[in-house]
Amino acid sequence: MTLLEHSIQNITEPDQEIKAAALKRLANQARPRGSLGRLEPAAARLASICGRMDVRLDKKTIVTCAGDHGVVEEGISLFPSEVTAQMVYNFVQGGASINVLARHAGARVQVADLGVNHDFDPALDILHRKIRKGTSNMARGPAMTREEATESVQAGISIVNHLADSQGLDLLGTGDMGIGNTTPSSAIIAVFSALPVKDLVGPGTGLDQQGVELKARVINKALELNRPDPSDPMDVLAKVGGLEIGGLAGLVIGAAARKIPVICDGLISTAGALIACELCPLARKYLFAGHRSREVGHEYMLRYLELTPLLDLEMRLGEGTGAALAMEILDACTRVLADIKTFEEVGIQNAHAF
Amino acid sequence: MTLLEHSIQNITEPDQEIKAAALKRLANQARPRGSLGRLEPAAARLASICGRMDVRLDKKTIVTCAGDHGVVEEGISLFPSEVTAQMVYNFVQGGASINVLARHAGARVQVADLGVNHDFDPALDILHRKIRKGTSNMARGPAMTREEATESVQAGISIVNHLADSQGLDLLGTGDMGIGNTTPSSAIIAVFSALPVKDLVGPGTGLDQQGVELKARVINKALELNRPDPSDPMDVLAKVGGLEIGGLAGLVIGAAARKIPVICDGLISTAGALIACELCPLARKYLFAGHRSREVGHEYMLRYLELTPLLDLEMRLGEGTGAALAMEILDACTRVLADIKTFEEVGIQNAHAF
Repeated sequence: MTLLEHSIQNITEPDQEIKAAALKRLANQARPRGSLGRLEPAAARLASICGRMDVRLDKKTIVTCAGDHGVVEEGISLFPSEVTAQMVYNFVQGGASINVLARHAGARVQVADLGVNHDFDPALDILHRKIRKGTSNMARGPAMTREEATESVQAGISIVNHLADSQGLDLLGTGDMGIGNTTPSSAIIAVFSALPVKDLVGPGTGLDQQGVELKARVINKALELNRPDPSDPMDVLAKVGGLEIGGLAGLVIGAAARKIPVICDGLISTAGALIACELCPLARKYLFAGHRSREVGHEYMLRYLELTPLLDLEMRLGEGTGAALAMEILDACTRVLADIKTFEEVGIQNAHAF
Repeated sequence: MTLLEHSIQNITEPDQEIKAAALKRLANQARPRGSLGRLEPAAARLASICGRMDVRLDKKTIVTCAGDHGVVEEGISLFPSEVTAQMVYNFVQGGASINVLARHAGARVQVADLGVNHDFDPALDILHRKIRKGTSNMARGPAMTREEATESVQAGISIVNHLADSQGLDLLGTGDMGIGNTTPSSAIIAVFSALPVKDLVGPGTGLDQQGVELKARVINKALELNRPDPSDPMDVLAKVGGLEIGGLAGLVIGAAARKIPVICDGLISTAGALIACELCPLARKYLFAGHRSREVGHEYMLRYLELTPLLDLEMRLGEGTGAALAMEILDACTRVLADIKTFEEVGIQNAHAF
């Protein structure tokens, strides 16, 4: 059995008894029923995933998966591919947006190289899982082989296993870096949702209207040429996906298999989560949407996954920044459930009135 | 000169030069322009308020103002007034929702008694600023005298001065406790917005449709009877407000006068902020909306104040819970501005492409 098959087999329904007990405690706390809004179902989900009422998310990690994209040669990004590697160095040095927001959330950042078109010094603090130096141009053929796609997903799973075994992992956040990667991400939601590509593409790092239209044409060309099969998620990933997107899918599957809650970030991370949930629908039970990205395709991904994001701050950065901020909200949810006293515990009468 | 007049006189425009420098730094950071969405203007505002680029919000306090309401005798709340005092004891003991969420945000909670209908032991850790034991029933006459209203606002100002002088105060959050207080809060936004009361009332702690309609009738009766003058905010506060609402207005004015950023919570806290901003429009420059409450009148308050809330988690609890969670976001904003490196600092080329 492959690592992927084995991991999918290990994904089971979270604990429904604990979920029921959590919802009961939330309803009996000394405050109006339902008054903590979306914190309440999130708190109950965390309890059911972690199998206890007093969840402690002490060990938090954001894994930022990086990869390059052959489709950049079609002119769909403002930035040249070299910036992917430059940003990886920035992550390692600790001065990038994700480092700053993860530090604030009390989370570590681990950069994973799934397919950057650059040779990194093996001594650098990077999870070296390079499958190949960037994908092929999907507007001229499949982005990668089915074997490479499977390998990228398994690399993501193995990263979760490595982190959980070596340093402990209570909460995982997913993030991405890859110049050009809004293009494959929009292609992936187009395949699964069957919605018109023009409704799913946005400016990415800052394209103008003409650039957005070019991006839509390139995606349509790639879809017509490669004909990815929506009922075969690995086919979709191979033909119009990306190496870091496969890694991001693997992170979700790996976390779900180990009963670790996982927060996805924006468009690219959620594209990975889509692949994961198509490979194994139960994985969705372990998944939280960190935020709603301003990149338009993300909203359709959230609808497709039926996930309500925790934050809506008009961000569109990637790297895992939305996941990092949302970690603070999820962490607060654990305290809400465990620490707010019930009417009975504080001896307030009239609890029946609620 | 009274404390109120003196404080209003001290409220000046935040530093526009620092704001411009902050926006420039944000635009030059190694990430797509504007990609951190609403964090960016919030970070720039914080810098302009605090007068420096590297803002440190180390000393955070939530002040939860409590008071009772004579209008409860009209049957507009599911809970009897006694619950106000019971919840104050819950706050002091540390097991209430606001204690839990403030602790998570690294903030202290200070409960202030502006007008609870109960005698508290003076030794309890409460800011004892009781003006009277609850307001009069506004459906039968003014809630309080103009002098009492002014006194409640000044009590709020004096609390800020006390906290800033005794323990330091870098960020203030406002919160409320007062059975029945969604009724005066909805009345206040009705007066200023001139919108129909029926559009501004919600279920509070859990009224059914009949209860909501009763609440609207009671507010309309109070407005017709007392005829509060929308051009005279102290008249509005006295006739259809509340003692804790006056305290909440004073917190905003007191914070603005000392150049301390202040986050308001939901319907009741924002009603206090409305009074403050009508008394001194410049106070708004120091004010952040923590979240969007599910209580319908709150949306109209936010529109009236032209504030975009940081969070939208369908909460409707009060106590300062939304302000506490939003403190974590504002704190992250300070790190975004100071700690994310610019293109120049990390030596990435192609910065012009942004």
